[in-house]
Amino acid sequence: MGTGVLVIGGSAAGIIAAVTGKSNYPDKDFLLVRKEQQAIIPCGIPYIFGSLESSEKDVIPDKVLSKAGIELKVGEVISVDSQEKVCKTADGTQIHYEKLVLATGSEPRLPRWLKGAGLENVFMIPKDKVYLDMILEKLQGSQKIVVVGGGFIGVEMSDELHKRGKDVTLVEKLPHILGLAFDEDIAVRAEEALKARGVKVLSGVGVKEVTGDTKVTGVLLDNGVTIEADVVVLSVGYKPNTELAADAELSLNKWGAVRVDEYMRTEDQSIFAVGDCAEKTDFITRKPCPTMLASTACAEARVAGINLFKLSVVKTFSGTISIFSTALGDTGFGVAGLTETRAREEGFDVVTGTFEGMDKHPGSLPGAHKQMVKLIVGKESNIILGGEVVGGLSIGELTNTIGFIIQNRMDINALLSAQIGTHPLLTASPAGYPLLKAAGMVSKKQLGLIK
Amino acid sequence: MGTGVLVIGGSAAGIIAAVTGKSNYPDKDFLLVRKEQQAIIPCGIPYIFGSLESSEKDVIPDKVLSKAGIELKVGEVISVDSQEKVCKTADGTQIHYEKLVLATGSEPRLPRWLKGAGLENVFMIPKDKVYLDMILEKLQGSQKIVVVGGGFIGVEMSDELHKRGKDVTLVEKLPHILGLAFDEDIAVRAEEALKARGVKVLSGVGVKEVTGDTKVTGVLLDNGVTIEADVVVLSVGYKPNTELAADAELSLNKWGAVRVDEYMRTEDQSIFAVGDCAEKTDFITRKPCPTMLASTACAEARVAGINLFKLSVVKTFSGTISIFSTALGDTGFGVAGLTETRAREEGFDVVTGTFEGMDKHPGSLPGAHKQMVKLIVGKESNIILGGEVVGGLSIGELTNTIGFIIQNRMDINALLSAQIGTHPLLTASPAGYPLLKAAGMVSKKQLGLIK
Repeated sequence: MGTGVLVIGGSAAGIIAAVTGKSNYPDKDFLLVRKEQQAIIPCGIPYIFGSLESSEKDVIPDKVLSKAGIELKVGEVISVDSQEKVCKTADGTQIHYEKLVLATGSEPRLPRWLKGAGLENVFMIPKDKVYLDMILEKLQGSQKIVVVGGGFIGVEMSDELHKRGKDVTLVEKLPHILGLAFDEDIAVRAEEALKARGVKVLSGVGVKEVTGDTKVTGVLLDNGVTIEADVVVLSVGYKPNTELAADAELSLNKWGAVRVDEYMRTEDQSIFAVGDCAEKTDFITRKPCPTMLASTACAEARVAGINLFKLSVVKTFSGTISIFSTALGDTGFGVAGLTETRAREEGFDVVTGTFEGMDKHPGSLPGAHKQMVKLIVGKESNIILGGEVVGGLSIGELTNTIGFIIQNRMDINALLSAQIGTHPLLTASPAGYPLLKAAGMVSKKQLGLIK
Repeated sequence: MGTGVLVIGGSAAGIIAAVTGKSNYPDKDFLLVRKEQQAIIPCGIPYIFGSLESSEKDVIPDKVLSKAGIELKVGEVISVDSQEKVCKTADGTQIHYEKLVLATGSEPRLPRWLKGAGLENVFMIPKDKVYLDMILEKLQGSQKIVVVGGGFIGVEMSDELHKRGKDVTLVEKLPHILGLAFDEDIAVRAEEALKARGVKVLSGVGVKEVTGDTKVTGVLLDNGVTIEADVVVLSVGYKPNTELAADAELSLNKWGAVRVDEYMRTEDQSIFAVGDCAEKTDFITRKPCPTMLASTACAEARVAGINLFKLSVVKTFSGTISIFSTALGDTGFGVAGLTETRAREEGFDVVTGTFEGMDKHPGSLPGAHKQMVKLIVGKESNIILGGEVVGGLSIGELTNTIGFIIQNRMDINALLSAQIGTHPLLTASPAGYPLLKAAGMVSKKQLGLIK
């Protein structure tokens, strides 16, 4: 069989690449091949274990594809012949393509160094509904859960499992949870919030071994303490799925991601790669970076889809910013661009400004929540390199505001003379809008008016 | 007496001009003179009548000024001699100034054409705590309230008074409430939301007369119907307070606002004007516009405060965008820049894109709310001229995202290749983020792929 565009992978990036591509090139045939019977909304996975109560509510309906006129085949592509432009699936089907889009995603990194990682009731969190349903079932009879790894997945899993009434302990080697995503001052707040919700958090301590004979019984920490466990969840990072890319003789970077240009084209101009399997270049440092986010994947997929057969949308913003948010109860945490720690590691001299106010005004209004914004600014350029926020549930959109500020390379001067809109029930006050007040703090530091 | 900087007016604009000015020019003396014993948070006023239950919770504390080292005088400035650079107050004090900042605000427009507007229990909504407390007292014994004018103040007042258990009828001459702020498709939704909350809305009908002998008894509409009323609230717009500016022989524009340049300097380079009393130039049409918003006032005040004695912050974005939001229950409405209607009236050929999704993902998550974004885009330039949103309470910040998109003069191409951050509990999905999907709709219309 043959198709105009073959997309391998049925998660967010694959779907968006196919749907965008088809709407821009309606005369071409589009075929999407994925391994899973049902595709799952990746960022919703932790919520299957608590708020949603089942994986069925987290499924991406296939009608997204059929409505757009995209053919779907469930199956596994096992080889790519980039010379002949043909892929072979496990059932022996050969699929000829004009353009190939690799959207093969990522999978949990198995900590091979960790003794006992293979015991019964030790799970990872792949984007695989069948596996996730199996975990859900096993959880029924389990009470004591240890989550290893305090990144986003580990933190959200811990909170959701605790919501379900489980006894949850989260173990994180770094001094604080979310310690790679946020600066310490923010990470500390996230850790406090998670603890206040009832999750036991052990940070600053590593895991030495998962104990048990055939079935897990506990986790032995670096400090010699053992924590009892019926179930252990390992969330220590993800690695790109790029066996097929390697098969097509495409270069991979040091993290195993496929090298791509700004238009998501690999070295083979007939093959695109998008999402977790594709290399990212940091927007500010211009170096490869290992960001894996569904939102970033979708941005890449849009660009690829539009530019499949000719260059059309011009990439105005080159590179990737880390931009994400999460929530613990009624408190949200968000970050866009570089943290202060990362900026300094990269060699920037930075000036930061932090301001905490209320997210409604007056702050006495029902439902008002503290809101804090920290801006990270290049000392010489005055350009906003990053921002971090803690606040009520409106901080998801506030994080996106900061994302646009960074992508437009706005500086402190531009922020100080910019306009915002405010409303008592919806935002901080016009006189105390934390984003602009934080910019004001940076400006005063730069002028030597404050330290 | 004498001062480095004299600020007249103690609401948001005056305070921010003084505080910003003092922090940038710490060696100068700052004096703020205001008429009112206590300053009130202007945008919070409608909420005094419902959610806050008293005006005390809506007061701007004077310590904002004292902490910043700004002297406060309660009194009325009655004349400005711009030659001698001296102001006179009602108590005979003469105040010499180096720089004068007019932040005299606006006051409700009394509809002189309206018979009965002067009857007892007919109120307007000035930014005056004493008057507002008087209304609150009069409301105690009143049940039937008619609000005339369905702009933001009228709508928010109606909703809050109804929250307090009053029988509220809102009368609006335009086909729908908020009809000047939003395009009809959005205004209709706001009207439905307000009705669903229990406020009686009569739109598309004018008011002919307020009836009663000494005390109001009702409102006679253009269509001959009379609505009974114990209290009538007139909210038919505000006019700039610029008697002092006229006294200083400064030019006023056709709406009575003081003419200013981009740095908020009047024709007299020692006199600045900020906030509702100062002229605004539309960011896109480059014409004077009558926008009156606390957030805009604060933006102007920051620029004036920083640039009082020398140019320092350079105005990157020239002009004013209308940018505001409001909420009715759990539904928020926001707008930034030009509406479709205004853009067409101004002579633009526009292309619009509208997309409705959910503000959490999957949409089955508790608390998820529909979210709609409409973008208004110049047909030839592809530049975003405006945006309107309806959604949950995160739309206040989403409106600001659109504000930055407009101020950065981003075009559809830039939006299509931009990155956003998403989270199940905080935002729409990465694949269905309404802002970017709306941009996609515009693009497809421009390419002739859809109509």
